[in-house]
Amino acid sequence: MPHDLFEIMSSTRSMRRLKPDQIPDDLLRQVLEAGTFAANGGNMQTWRFLLIRDPIVKAAAGAWYRKAWQEIVGPRYRTAAPAPGQSSEQFARMLAAAQHLADHIHEAPVWIVPCAPGTRNTGSSIFPAVQNILLACRALGLGCTLTTLHLNFEKEVEAALSLPEDVHSYAILPIGYPMGKFGPVRRAPLENVVYQDRWGEAYQA
Amino acid sequence: MPHDLFEIMSSTRSMRRLKPDQIPDDLLRQVLEAGTFAANGGNMQTWRFLLIRDPIVKAAAGAWYRKAWQEIVGPRYRTAAPAPGQSSEQFARMLAAAQHLADHIHEAPVWIVPCAPGTRNTGSSIFPAVQNILLACRALGLGCTLTTLHLNFEKEVEAALSLPEDVHSYAILPIGYPMGKFGPVRRAPLENVVYQDRWGEAYQA
Repeated sequence: MPHDLFEIMSSTRSMRRLKPDQIPDDLLRQVLEAGTFAANGGNMQTWRFLLIRDPIVKAAAGAWYRKAWQEIVGPRYRTAAPAPGQSSEQFARMLAAAQHLADHIHEAPVWIVPCAPGTRNTGSSIFPAVQNILLACRALGLGCTLTTLHLNFEKEVEAALSLPEDVHSYAILPIGYPMGKFGPVRRAPLENVVYQDRWGEAYQA
Repeated sequence: MPHDLFEIMSSTRSMRRLKPDQIPDDLLRQVLEAGTFAANGGNMQTWRFLLIRDPIVKAAAGAWYRKAWQEIVGPRYRTAAPAPGQSSEQFARMLAAAQHLADHIHEAPVWIVPCAPGTRNTGSSIFPAVQNILLACRALGLGCTLTTLHLNFEKEVEAALSLPEDVHSYAILPIGYPMGKFGPVRRAPLENVVYQDRWGEAYQA
């Protein structure tokens, strides 16, 4: 089955409503391998990927995730303006999906938690792998979303995930077959986010 | 031309030797668009991409990049062990390529500098876009590499790039037609970097 890169990239949406159905091991292997193909500093591959299927671990960490959404991130979003180019209705749907994820994140059959040793850094050797994982999931018909809001309870979640003290988690990537359909991502036009040669100078191409 | 996602991902190497030849505008547009398709927090798209072709800007920022390599990062790498699974010869070749990049980074026809407003953060809404840019370049036959070592002289480089005080750069992505050929990335086997359910527990699939 061909997976056209540009088609995949332009339709890799955050999929926050996931079915609890199990995912075949060979698909997960492809997803993890895709992660390790990503750019990383000096090719040192200090990343570690925690693949979690154990319901007890997901339930323990998921409770902190839900708390972070309910008490901190959800209220913040509900009083914020919609994303650029997004209608109020679209924004409301996104919030409902985020609420659904918070309520059900532990039911996703698999999580991948990308980790790195040492003090928390800029993530330049982690988030490229995360994007590869998102793209691979999309190509294989799996839903996934990048979320970092568990870091509002960093210590508690990392204890629930059994991380050593000198290791940090950078995201939670819940993975499952999506309830909804994939569709094109919605983004502002390039002219709104690209400058040319100097900050503020209009992009012309 | 089909661009199979998994084929592209498994052959997106850092390309550090670049030709000075100009890149057509429509290819750069595709590359930038690919960046904006990436995952980002709440789809808020706070990212800004500085597309630099001006030789004066590249020369000014490039001088700090070279200094960072010569005085700080180069010496550190030269006394370090090779990356996992890498021979001494491969490591020496990587160092030579990194030296070449430091000497010639200003000659790359284009840089993309991904930026974000506010205090420097974990880059969870920047490096996914960077990976998409790397993949898009690869698919279009363009060489690119993710480098962050200019941040050793953060203030000086960001002044040379005309960034406002409340904006930070997260990487420099020099882009050009590659002198060498694309080839498979070299990575440690999954078993070395994936744990299952609990930290340290062997991955079995």
